Amino acid sequence: FITNFSSTENIEYIPIKDAMVISDGLYSRKVKKDSTNVTVGNVKIGSGKLVIAAGPCAVESEEQLMEIGERVKEMGADMLRGGAFKPRTTPYSFQGLGVKGINMMKKVSDYTGLPTVSEIMDLSYYKHFDGNIDMIQVGSRNSQNFALLKFLGQKGMPVLLKNGMGNTISEWLNSAEYILSGGNGNVVMCYRGVRSFEDSTRFMMDSGAIPVLRERSHLPVCADPSHPAGKREYVETLAMAAVASGTDMLEIEVHNNPDEALSDAKQQLDFMGFSKLIKKVRKLKEIVG
Amino acid sequence: FITNFSSTENIEYIPIKDAMVISDGLYSRKVKKDSTNVTVGNVKIGSGKLVIAAGPCAVESEEQLMEIGERVKEMGADMLRGGAFKPRTTPYSFQGLGVKGINMMKKVSDYTGLPTVSEIMDLSYYKHFDGNIDMIQVGSRNSQNFALLKFLGQKGMPVLLKNGMGNTISEWLNSAEYILSGGNGNVVMCYRGVRSFEDSTRFMMDSGAIPVLRERSHLPVCADPSHPAGKREYVETLAMAAVASGTDMLEIEVHNNPDEALSDAKQQLDFMGFSKLIKKVRKLKEIVG
Amino acid sequence: FITNFSSTENIEYIPIKDAMVISDGLYSRKVKKDSTNVTVGNVKIGSGKLVIAAGPCAVESEEQLMEIGERVKEMGADMLRGGAFKPRTTPYSFQGLGVKGINMMKKVSDYTGLPTVSEIMDLSYYKHFDGNIDMIQVGSRNSQNFALLKFLGQKGMPVLLKNGMGNTISEWLNSAEYILSGGNGNVVMCYRGVRSFEDSTRFMMDSGAIPVLRERSHLPVCADPSHPAGKREYVETLAMAAVASGTDMLEIEVHNNPDEALSDAKQQLDFMGFSKLIKKVRKLKEIVG
Amino acid sequence: FITNFSSTENIEYIPIKDAMVISDGLYSRKVKKDSTNVTVGNVKIGSGKLVIAAGPCAVESEEQLMEIGERVKEMGADMLRGGAFKPRTTPYSFQGLGVKGINMMKKVSDYTGLPTVSEIMDLSYYKHFDGNIDMIQVGSRNSQNFALLKFLGQKGMPVLLKNGMGNTISEWLNSAEYILSGGNGNVVMCYRGVRSFEDSTRFMMDSGAIPVLRERSHLPVCADPSHPAGKREYVETLAMAAVASGTDMLEIEVHNNPDEALSDAKQQLDFMGFSKLIKKVRKLKEIVG
Repeated sequence: FITNFSSTENIEYIPIKDAMVISDGLYSRKVKKDSTNVTVGNVKIGSGKLVIAAGPCAVESEEQLMEIGERVKEMGADMLRGGAFKPRTTPYSFQGLGVKGINMMKKVSDYTGLPTVSEIMDLSYYKHFDGNIDMIQVGSRNSQNFALLKFLGQKGMPVLLKNGMGNTISEWLNSAEYILSGGNGNVVMCYRGVRSFEDSTRFMMDSGAIPVLRERSHLPVCADPSHPAGKREYVETLAMAAVASGTDMLEIEVHNNPDEALSDAKQQLDFMGFSKLIKKVRKLKEIVG
Repeated sequence: FITNFSSTENIEYIPIKDAMVISDGLYSRKVKKDSTNVTVGNVKIGSGKLVIAAGPCAVESEEQLMEIGERVKEMGADMLRGGAFKPRTTPYSFQGLGVKGINMMKKVSDYTGLPTVSEIMDLSYYKHFDGNIDMIQVGSRNSQNFALLKFLGQKGMPVLLKNGMGNTISEWLNSAEYILSGGNGNVVMCYRGVRSFEDSTRFMMDSGAIPVLRERSHLPVCADPSHPAGKREYVETLAMAAVASGTDMLEIEVHNNPDEALSDAKQQLDFMGFSKLIKKVRKLKEIVG
Repeated sequence: FITNFSSTENIEYIPIKDAMVISDGLYSRKVKKDSTNVTVGNVKIGSGKLVIAAGPCAVESEEQLMEIGERVKEMGADMLRGGAFKPRTTPYSFQGLGVKGINMMKKVSDYTGLPTVSEIMDLSYYKHFDGNIDMIQVGSRNSQNFALLKFLGQKGMPVLLKNGMGNTISEWLNSAEYILSGGNGNVVMCYRGVRSFEDSTRFMMDSGAIPVLRERSHLPVCADPSHPAGKREYVETLAMAAVASGTDMLEIEVHNNPDEALSDAKQQLDFMGFSKLIKKVRKLKEIVG
Repeated sequence: FITNFSSTENIEYIPIKDAMVISDGLYSRKVKKDSTNVTVGNVKIGSGKLVIAAGPCAVESEEQLMEIGERVKEMGADMLRGGAFKPRTTPYSFQGLGVKGINMMKKVSDYTGLPTVSEIMDLSYYKHFDGNIDMIQVGSRNSQNFALLKFLGQKGMPVLLKNGMGNTISEWLNSAEYILSGGNGNVVMCYRGVRSFEDSTRFMMDSGAIPVLRERSHLPVCADPSHPAGKREYVETLAMAAVASGTDMLEIEVHNNPDEALSDAKQQLDFMGFSKLIKKVRKLKEIVG
């Protein structure tokens, strides 16, 4: 064995991991240097004020949603979240109220004045959202549903685009590019954690995700601490970390009676938990600026 | 510090990682003990003979597809694969020929007698597949597109269901359940690897996936060695490992001129590579039974 | 296909992922409810004040270390970190100054009054640390070096125990148990991120790690934002997230001339970067309490 | 939004994930083109014949080890494996018989003629192995214990180097480089799977690992299907996949009474299981060559 190690030749630059991604897309700071604001009803995301969307994982009834909407508004929430079409791992789990749920969102929004965000699962559902919901959420499981993304690119409605649980940040930004390149610039990137080998939380919420997004993209950033926590005891801490990392927005699951919730029972906050969280994150936002 | 460690009390059974999954669904051996066969045209998947689907990542022209179809048939392929609608990470990559590509698949299938498999990206595309394609592929990025899965459950066409790159086997089987519970029992589970930290291949192909599927489910199993390899030099070895693990079917990307391919150029085999692979896997199948 | 899904029987509680781990060890709040303080020289970790250890990845010379020590002290650091024995991925990378580096740490500590922390790579090196270094760091690559952990359990010196890059939190706590069960209760858990498929940072820093540690263990918690960042631009944000999550301590790589550093050149902060970081995290600590 | 996408400028070559690794080290085919054989007693690893090491996870008694040694020899094993020093996740699990276990290995080796392989946990244990054990195993948890690797580089004893559960193949090869660069060329790379989010097996066994190793390195390759399986029902299938991928050697856990084993009870094979496995893999090896 004889070898000669020169200082520069023997460094292996690890090859590209996956398929091509674009780094100078419409999403990038190379194309647009200044940060983008996205307006949803009376709310501006990315303008400096922390925007907080709160509400149940799933809309379960008009009474439930009205109570939650009124309470989170009182506590200072800016938007109402609520799932009408629910992507559930098994077909035997509660699948959401569908169009009825959308109508309830509209009603509570009209009453409280809170703009709404709700998840779409297929482009054919769009007609139910149009005019009734203020911002369309694309969930983790549809983050590379390119047919849906292209379709939303041709509409003007703001999109809350979650990252795929098995996707890199580069892939996620390229998913946003599908919407932007269609002409719809109203995209907010919502980080909800990724898959990992760790088994004490539901998903791993990378503190590095927000600074990487900030550096590469001018799009506003949201964080969802409820899904990665998997357990309500951790939600507030994950929210604090996200605000300290500079998120523009938080999306929090809040339920009037979490233990009886028809979905994600373990991770939804009750009103007291949300009240405590919102005070802490608002105070934190003041100092992180 | 004083403690008393009894032998059984201090064992932590790590809590369930994610949302509920069903272990005794229609997919399971608890419900149906005997292995299922799925018939696609003149081909039976799961009956003991190794079924091999080969063809280009993307249909690029009729001439290209006809040449590939004729050659892979001569070499012993059982089915023709070819993408007409292509899920690409960026919107600026070749998106496939769409309906024209489907028609080319139909033409080459009629000429060669090979049944076809092609990927659907949205339920609204189904009308183009119906009557033209023999088996619908649901790709990794739509493996938890539940609207699409439910829709396919109401049709009779066989489905080749890939695993999501960030999903567990339990979640994948529950995706199959969406199709089965709608009444369509013709599902083949196609393993294409998952995300990992390893950077020398494109995806990680777990040798444990096939024995786990076999134990839990009666559904036939396919393996796609092309996507995890990411590099054609590794495809044959991954195919051999999959056959040794007991796969019923292989899906292989083969191109007449791989270096010029419009997608996945690095991982598609040329005819010589496919010819060598098919001889080796057929011989291996004989001894693994 | 006919099946009968009862509501409780068909839920699969996913089996334990890995080998047995103990949940009621000496590390746990089941055994000791109140949070533990660990004293290192004149510093108390876990007592409410944020402890900041700063210094170079590797000790490179006495002049370098003296300059860094004096400057970080002026800026408010509580401890001096510096590697004398360096675990490097290749044998051709700078391996550290060894015993000479330890002696330089001692000298700078005597001059500045800052207690020191430095990494041990084998139990046979202990004699060099004893009396010269105030806290022994066990790095990620030795986090399950049980021979080393048992040995340190029989000594009284405080230990800064990093998590293995491929270990779960449960496994990491069980590594701490090796030290505690030997009689050495002076263990601080230092989170430095884990492996993931994400390629835009060096390691993934899970915001959930600190709340999980807090809930399960009474041991103080440290965070290392330098290694997961991999790039100095992200270090401050990761540090902010860690403080917002409630860390008791930060360990930060600071170099007098980072671009010329003999190791980890890309992720070490310069003095200006550290000065900015320490002001921000101290201010943040005040409001998170 | 206006942008101009040129065809080559906008492709992002993802930056190097982690610290520098060497691609033209002594381990590489750039330095030595022909495959290396490693001789252990009367056995040659890498010479074309499949080498099978079998034996208990942990040596539990002389009677146990003698029975296992005799039986696996009869069935055609080439080497005896057995752990005397056991790296266990918790300090309260059986830690192995230590030096007594080493002596038992020596005795059974003398009686059966099988060369032995056993795990070292710290360099200070080397004196017990020298002259008593034929091949030293470095386990997953010490795969980046560079002090140990350097030490073994200065000895001549063959080393079975496992991959770290959280390491890339590049890092693993660079760990081998620590041994090779010290002058000990007798290194066999033993793949035992890596960490992943999948929860149905204990570790993920990547079918791509062996072809990647083959391409980059001239060192012989071993596979350990017992640890990734985590469950004895999967061991044979993982072994078949490894042989089909071209492994030179297998290391299999076999116990006279697996359910009562003091460690890894679920994954050790009984004699009947091993007898079946060895016949199948030997037959498979004939056709894969």
